[in-house]
Amino acid sequence: MSAGVVGQVAALRETVARLHRELTRYGLVAWTAGNVSARVPGQDLMVIKPSGVDYDDLTAESMVVCDLGGAVVDGGGSPSSDTAAHAYVYRAMPEVGGVVHTHSGYATAWAARGEAIPCWLTAQADEFGGEIPVGPFALIGGDDIGKGIVSTLSGHRSPAVLMRNHGVFTIGRDARAAVKAAVMCEDVARTAHLARALGQPLPIAPADIDSLYDRYQNVYGQRPPAP
Amino acid sequence: MSAGVVGQVAALRETVARLHRELTRYGLVAWTAGNVSARVPGQDLMVIKPSGVDYDDLTAESMVVCDLGGAVVDGGGSPSSDTAAHAYVYRAMPEVGGVVHTHSGYATAWAARGEAIPCWLTAQADEFGGEIPVGPFALIGGDDIGKGIVSTLSGHRSPAVLMRNHGVFTIGRDARAAVKAAVMCEDVARTAHLARALGQPLPIAPADIDSLYDRYQNVYGQRPPAP
Amino acid sequence: MSAGVVGQVAALRETVARLHRELTRYGLVAWTAGNVSARVPGQDLMVIKPSGVDYDDLTAESMVVCDLGGAVVDGGGSPSSDTAAHAYVYRAMPEVGGVVHTHSGYATAWAARGEAIPCWLTAQADEFGGEIPVGPFALIGGDDIGKGIVSTLSGHRSPAVLMRNHGVFTIGRDARAAVKAAVMCEDVARTAHLARALGQPLPIAPADIDSLYDRYQNVYGQRPPAP
Amino acid sequence: MSAGVVGQVAALRETVARLHRELTRYGLVAWTAGNVSARVPGQDLMVIKPSGVDYDDLTAESMVVCDLGGAVVDGGGSPSSDTAAHAYVYRAMPEVGGVVHTHSGYATAWAARGEAIPCWLTAQADEFGGEIPVGPFALIGGDDIGKGIVSTLSGHRSPAVLMRNHGVFTIGRDARAAVKAAVMCEDVARTAHLARALGQPLPIAPADIDSLYDRYQNVYGQRPPAP
Repeated sequence: MSAGVVGQVAALRETVARLHRELTRYGLVAWTAGNVSARVPGQDLMVIKPSGVDYDDLTAESMVVCDLGGAVVDGGGSPSSDTAAHAYVYRAMPEVGGVVHTHSGYATAWAARGEAIPCWLTAQADEFGGEIPVGPFALIGGDDIGKGIVSTLSGHRSPAVLMRNHGVFTIGRDARAAVKAAVMCEDVARTAHLARALGQPLPIAPADIDSLYDRYQNVYGQRPPAP
Repeated sequence: MSAGVVGQVAALRETVARLHRELTRYGLVAWTAGNVSARVPGQDLMVIKPSGVDYDDLTAESMVVCDLGGAVVDGGGSPSSDTAAHAYVYRAMPEVGGVVHTHSGYATAWAARGEAIPCWLTAQADEFGGEIPVGPFALIGGDDIGKGIVSTLSGHRSPAVLMRNHGVFTIGRDARAAVKAAVMCEDVARTAHLARALGQPLPIAPADIDSLYDRYQNVYGQRPPAP
Repeated sequence: MSAGVVGQVAALRETVARLHRELTRYGLVAWTAGNVSARVPGQDLMVIKPSGVDYDDLTAESMVVCDLGGAVVDGGGSPSSDTAAHAYVYRAMPEVGGVVHTHSGYATAWAARGEAIPCWLTAQADEFGGEIPVGPFALIGGDDIGKGIVSTLSGHRSPAVLMRNHGVFTIGRDARAAVKAAVMCEDVARTAHLARALGQPLPIAPADIDSLYDRYQNVYGQRPPAP
Repeated sequence: MSAGVVGQVAALRETVARLHRELTRYGLVAWTAGNVSARVPGQDLMVIKPSGVDYDDLTAESMVVCDLGGAVVDGGGSPSSDTAAHAYVYRAMPEVGGVVHTHSGYATAWAARGEAIPCWLTAQADEFGGEIPVGPFALIGGDDIGKGIVSTLSGHRSPAVLMRNHGVFTIGRDARAAVKAAVMCEDVARTAHLARALGQPLPIAPADIDSLYDRYQNVYGQRPPAP
């Protein structure tokens, strides 16, 4: 690695380790389940959580650097058991800079029924642009999970997929955006669950969903100053 | 701004920044959603949360001062994307000194079904004086949300409105009162949800609701010493 | 007050202030709702939470000492708006040394339907000796709440009553025991809710409930050494 | 005890005291309910929580050492009221090094209905190898609970049993593994509850459950370096 890449990797180790705190803060993970990764920009490399390590013990140093075939390039431990899925997504979707996986409870409940989450909330229109889709049942250990994520999310507005009987995978332009999508996915999955538990939620007109999505993607948040 | 107004604004920046902690403490918000504002008393100004900034990073300095047209008067960042709605409320309701917006889950579930929360709890009678009403579906970006809040809450006892498919807006004589209303709205929305989930809650007689509301608004809490 | 009573009161101020932390730790209260009191042993006095004060701001000094008519004896603030109910219980039930009131969500949901919590759990048999009963609807401001608590709990094993459309009152030999009953009441109310939400829980035979209750009341916990 | 055993016991006192923090972190226990124990390897001894002591006050010193008949060998306090059940498991299942008991809410709700948790989640297939079974109703105070645990879990893949109308017992090769099973049991019980609350979850094919279980037991986590 060049000195520049070494610096990039060091910074991403910090970022990825720290972003895992959002998973515990929002209660998206139990024990050591769940993981965050980041692509090293411009390299065939990613930084990912080690397998089976307590969230309290995650440090920048304990993160594992893998190539996009999933092989360990730097780091003493085994990478997340979901490494193959993350790597497949990075290979297939060059615009993706971060991937997150959780079994967050409400979202995974929709996944266990194989039901997409309908868009009943403006917050879901903002972040997901419509329903949150369901991906196929897939066994861990090969490329099946990665293929299921990519085939479901390619050409879809949603950065989150509910993998059947399994849990949530989210993507983003960077790891922070993917973590945000994971947090918002559970939040809307919960509110949608509560709404439907007592009756039939009201639909939002497709044109209104389009309008909300467009505005949120282009106006929300702090803007860099015009040059 | 006169020196007096400068001091008022500085104090409100502290207050508004600090009150956001109640939104996270009670789990009313996810990621950067949700916001608190305060009117600067006697001025056509308000202090509001910046857009898309982490709750952990909110400081008095990062708050944004806007006029009641929504234009930034002081502060380097973009104000909350809900600024137009807050400003509309302050223009239309001179008695309002604070506004809060959340997507808190149980209350938003009632909003997604377009159902007002019936008054099944003495705590709801105390704070809301009866049912918590539903406002119209409205798109962000103009005055529609503000108009929906004002038309629903004008002449209504409730300081909270459930905006359809969206979330909660609350008002108060100051920002702290509006935050209290947001906390209590989610609390009664949750208990009412749980009550109805297993059967039919018992009504409270309208005269009892009136009696509870009157007492709570006039007797509860610490009283200033008589002059 | 004699020096001995002054010391007793000072110790109870500490105890009562500190016990309120259990209400927030277990999520039994929102904003300033909920309160704990303790009888001053051998005196017609009680120590109780001030009205409408933030949980974070409760200190031994802010607690209010009242006589058992509810009049303030020591303390600068107004006592809890539920003081009359606590005082009524202490007057009517000399064996009670502590009283707690909450609107904890699952228990209050049963109260909103006016349904006692059936005894489906060994933990409920242990602590409550059977079902948790419902008390009448009663308005705040006189002795009606106190009378409803006392008439429901007198001669009943349960230290908790679900006051209709309102919330929970618990009693104990001291304030800590009453707080424990409030914590366990919400815990069993929640599990019973979840159990019935998906089907019909299995009953426990009355003789088994008796056996569990007897053992828990006489064997559980640390025993003082035999003399 | 030999010096070696004294050191083993001292280390297990630390481990067992500290592992109780996971029970409170994940909200598996209320007040003083719930307990963790560890077998002292190679000895007829176990280290267990004292009865009725606050979780905040648990220290290595306060843990109680008992023989596998349940008699106190070292420690000033009374051991957990569930000591007989833990001891029975250690006597009957020599491969078990840790036992945990909780009344965690979602899992106990399944137990209150006497329903095993079907395997609708890959996370459940990983950790439990299929459904989580129900054990018999049993009164505390003799060997009935222990017998119910052992008869249900012997020859079963699941390290967790839902004791009818009571709660969860989990086993593991050591105390940490038993705590992990208790955390995961509540997590899957919750997601399965949420999934079934709104419809019928999809089954996972038995061959896929076998495949997931085999992989997780043999590949997940950090591996010791090959010799």
